[in-house]
Amino acid sequence: MTYRATIVPRNSAEHGLVDAAKLVIARRTGSVDRLVALAASDMAGVDALIAARMQSPVSVIPALADHLIEAGGKRLRPLLTVAAARLMGGHGDRCIKLAAAVEFIHTATLLHDDVVDASGLRRGKVAAHLIWGAPSSVLVGDFLFARAFELMVETGSLGALEILARASRVIAEGEVLQLSRAHDLALSQATYLEIISAKTAELFAAAAEAGAVSAGADAAASAALRAFGQNLGLAFQLADDALDYDGSTETLGKNAGDDFREGKATLPLLLAIARLGPREVDFWQRAIGRQEQTSDDFRRARELIVGTGALEATLDLATSYAEDAKLALAIFPPTPWRDGLEALADFAVSRRA
Amino acid sequence: MTYRATIVPRNSAEHGLVDAAKLVIARRTGSVDRLVALAASDMAGVDALIAARMQSPVSVIPALADHLIEAGGKRLRPLLTVAAARLMGGHGDRCIKLAAAVEFIHTATLLHDDVVDASGLRRGKVAAHLIWGAPSSVLVGDFLFARAFELMVETGSLGALEILARASRVIAEGEVLQLSRAHDLALSQATYLEIISAKTAELFAAAAEAGAVSAGADAAASAALRAFGQNLGLAFQLADDALDYDGSTETLGKNAGDDFREGKATLPLLLAIARLGPREVDFWQRAIGRQEQTSDDFRRARELIVGTGALEATLDLATSYAEDAKLALAIFPPTPWRDGLEALADFAVSRRA
Repeated sequence: MTYRATIVPRNSAEHGLVDAAKLVIARRTGSVDRLVALAASDMAGVDALIAARMQSPVSVIPALADHLIEAGGKRLRPLLTVAAARLMGGHGDRCIKLAAAVEFIHTATLLHDDVVDASGLRRGKVAAHLIWGAPSSVLVGDFLFARAFELMVETGSLGALEILARASRVIAEGEVLQLSRAHDLALSQATYLEIISAKTAELFAAAAEAGAVSAGADAAASAALRAFGQNLGLAFQLADDALDYDGSTETLGKNAGDDFREGKATLPLLLAIARLGPREVDFWQRAIGRQEQTSDDFRRARELIVGTGALEATLDLATSYAEDAKLALAIFPPTPWRDGLEALADFAVSRRA
Repeated sequence: MTYRATIVPRNSAEHGLVDAAKLVIARRTGSVDRLVALAASDMAGVDALIAARMQSPVSVIPALADHLIEAGGKRLRPLLTVAAARLMGGHGDRCIKLAAAVEFIHTATLLHDDVVDASGLRRGKVAAHLIWGAPSSVLVGDFLFARAFELMVETGSLGALEILARASRVIAEGEVLQLSRAHDLALSQATYLEIISAKTAELFAAAAEAGAVSAGADAAASAALRAFGQNLGLAFQLADDALDYDGSTETLGKNAGDDFREGKATLPLLLAIARLGPREVDFWQRAIGRQEQTSDDFRRARELIVGTGALEATLDLATSYAEDAKLALAIFPPTPWRDGLEALADFAVSRRA
């Protein structure tokens, strides 16, 4: 499969199919603060550009886009683009435009995902489709996606355009694959990793790679930053899937237990099912397979997922991807930008939201 | 408004707000056959490229895309791209790739539109979202849109990329504007023309302009082909809106009366309302404003629209845009390609489906 290649091969060889008993990994507490401080003026430029380019004479468009964009989020993806470009010595505002484009692509996918999943909360606010309706969310997503490409064209970087066009296609493939395997209790861990590699890690990888390419990085440096983004994205999504069973709605900004209620077969669930063997089969088939849930089911699922060690195993796998991300940076001399990216990798796993 | 500028100004001055009594225009019978024959080998290449690039390891994607693309349609937009490029002396397969990209953008908007409008039929087949579900239609639309940009990047033409990225954004704006003014019986003819200029004519304009630019056309020639496409698109959409009250479901490939049942305020309806004045206000407010329709309402609406001359007036306006389209070609020497484009302009109005 096309996007299978985007999973960094050494991971699948080393620990692609997780057995937590074999993994003893120290989890480092990371922070996004160092990178945020370094990129402060650049990110102010990104925010200003985002605010300017979400405008339209059709007033529903900025209203709906603003609802989601002003809710914030961590802006990790555009931060990656800026950091990769500055690490490679890139000057000027080319990476600012690319970073805004990356955030627009991400926002477009969030709008469409929330329609697809019928989600209720996003970034701590009522999901846009519940206020403006699903049709507006679909069309404003299309608007933002097109705006992203307009911004990319302005940079004149065909290399960056190629990377982000491909990423946009791979993301859609990952989303469809996830949709077609929804409620599938027999989902293999390999297919699960394919899905998150495409739907999440690909944009992290492309965001970093496009930043590097736009700054004139050579093939080895671009590949290293792509590998960093790819592994960071996998760590981020695995931690996200763990948080759905471990975090509170208040800190998450979305409903804890959303994945479970939507019947999404994420790794914590798949591992728990595998470890329980024949036990609890009826429970999973009713609650996930047939989507017949009672109000107590999420609590019970959480107990099983924590009790079998599936939650910890998921976080261990996330940690190992974060370590791989940091290793990918070893070809660069130590600089504040490299240090900031390393701290970001640790943050992806140690965060609580 | 940004997309207002895309309405060719001379039209609005001459007959933007239609008064059919003033218009006595001979409608010529056109045909797409001449252009289809000239472009036969190019369009075979476009079809092959479309078939190749709709493929994905995620099997739902080609299945859903194929359902819509294999149903055919007239492929007018990619035909425009090819014809514009060949008219300007373009060689090679650059325009083939752009033409496939144009068709992918069009197909993506159809998939999303059918979800937005909850349409039942498209190109004579059950709409994709009724078979695979709305979520799949949304995501496969995203896939095709991204594929379009991958194809454009391959051509290396930043000029064509800029034109089609902008068009994609304008189309989304037009769709949102239409959605926000749905069921609005007070919609002005000017706003109606803005909507169809953005949601339909923009892609015709961009398809022709991108083909010209990719062949190295100068600014005057590119602008002329853009104007041709723009006017052709307006003629095409006006004829389409008339056909919804005049054609049969069998020849249309979609349900006759769809616009009426969806409460869309198109020109035939708006003109009939204007001409009837205070008469029938209750009927329109119930059937369109509040969307409370009986099975007999479409027949009655059709009688009023034909009886007031609103249908003929809409077709007259379509004819005048088709004439403008042909005038835009006057700067080019007569060649088989120019003749073919002229016949296409007449076809846009004289067609029965």
